[in-house]
Amino acid sequence: MKVLIVYAHPEPKSFNSALKNTAVEVFEELGYEVKVSDLYEMNFKAIADRNDFTEISNNEKLVYQMEQKKGKLTQDILEEHEKIEWADLIIFQFPLWWFTVPAIMKGYFDRVFTVPFAYYFPRLYDKGVFTGKKCLISVTTGGLDGVYLTRGLMGNASQILYPLIHGLIYFCGFQALSPEYFWAVAHSEEKRINYLKSWKRRLANIHNEEPIQFNKIEDYEDNGRGELKSGKITNFQILGKDFERKIRRKKKRKKKRKKKK
Amino acid sequence: MKVLIVYAHPEPKSFNSALKNTAVEVFEELGYEVKVSDLYEMNFKAIADRNDFTEISNNEKLVYQMEQKKGKLTQDILEEHEKIEWADLIIFQFPLWWFTVPAIMKGYFDRVFTVPFAYYFPRLYDKGVFTGKKCLISVTTGGLDGVYLTRGLMGNASQILYPLIHGLIYFCGFQALSPEYFWAVAHSEEKRINYLKSWKRRLANIHNEEPIQFNKIEDYEDNGRGELKSGKITNFQILGKDFERKIRRKKKRKKKRKKKK
Repeated sequence: MKVLIVYAHPEPKSFNSALKNTAVEVFEELGYEVKVSDLYEMNFKAIADRNDFTEISNNEKLVYQMEQKKGKLTQDILEEHEKIEWADLIIFQFPLWWFTVPAIMKGYFDRVFTVPFAYYFPRLYDKGVFTGKKCLISVTTGGLDGVYLTRGLMGNASQILYPLIHGLIYFCGFQALSPEYFWAVAHSEEKRINYLKSWKRRLANIHNEEPIQFNKIEDYEDNGRGELKSGKITNFQILGKDFERKIRRKKKRKKKRKKKK
Repeated sequence: MKVLIVYAHPEPKSFNSALKNTAVEVFEELGYEVKVSDLYEMNFKAIADRNDFTEISNNEKLVYQMEQKKGKLTQDILEEHEKIEWADLIIFQFPLWWFTVPAIMKGYFDRVFTVPFAYYFPRLYDKGVFTGKKCLISVTTGGLDGVYLTRGLMGNASQILYPLIHGLIYFCGFQALSPEYFWAVAHSEEKRINYLKSWKRRLANIHNEEPIQFNKIEDYEDNGRGELKSGKITNFQILGKDFERKIRRKKKRKKKRKKKK
């Protein structure tokens, strides 16, 4: 298997960095090939503008998406395209800042996930460009999972990440794996050690994991232009349920461990 | 009234720019004071890193939030703080890129909405720092509103924007106004003209608008640490319904206009 880790954190001694390094170790032990795009270390350009093109077809007015289609992209974008094409699995590793990715990773999406490289009509969702690839997001948070429940103060964590998981990952055809959360990592060394262990276990079996089963384009009326056919729950709900299931499983495991003691 | 418009688009001839200019005109005609943070024009730094501080308290390991608390922030951040403090209403004007703000605006959130300037425990949501201020987001999209319905292919537009509207705007205490959407603006000059007219009408009466009525911290068990009290719908649902209501009203108006003809 070929794995690309796209990683965004300004501090090499951070827990995010440890999660990234752990993933590299696990995969290399398994004999997988691994590449890392360390966005901070690469000093990755975050801001999408006319400098992203070696030639501009309309100099009078920048229409960013139209210039993408013309395909005169800068070298740093083309290099990321190669890595994405190469990979069977992509992991996005980041801290949750304002309930989404840091700006430098948002810039990666804005600049690298170009049309038609990453999507074009009608190659979307289950008909998308990257249907053969899997994608996993791995997130650290400031708060505990309790406030991220569906009826918690912040709201359902996976529904908060819907714009990324559904709007980018599934939109481009990737098979979205259930996101990995590391809650309130700042305050306990023991917690961080246990988290690294469970992260290793998950990654060692990642090739067996089934992706989240979102609705397909055929599940909507009028080939996607209409509404979801009746009787089906929305992709928002599917993602929300996936998260609630994860939390319930975690609670059960905790109870079991307590009983053993 | 004092209005701050935070604006992100790389092209001065864009429709986003026209929306921003229209807002400035309307408000100046009304005698309001207006400031604009044109992030592209300002060449605003998007990437949060150690250069955001004039002094670092822990040089060995950057803990970004902790350095924010120490308060040795660079001049560009302090200038935005002044504008935010000054304003009664903030408008975020941007094109929807990957179902959220462009990276340069994400960088504005990461770098400018610092702790404790914009939030600190327990000053969150209805108890937040900016409870006296209103906030409106104004978004252009590539797709039509039909795919952004709750059961549409992309999902409910306002729920997609939940991380911004609920996770940043309401989180910091702002009174969140119902977001303004401009659908599929790229293809019709007539549509853009009509949109500018309706935008003017809305802004001229913005001082009378009621914010979205989200749940308050007291609506959750255990002072926010527990779940939403039974019988109440979640803030996710409240935002989703606000959007559906807006779309239904729009359809009604369209029908009426057709009848008149």
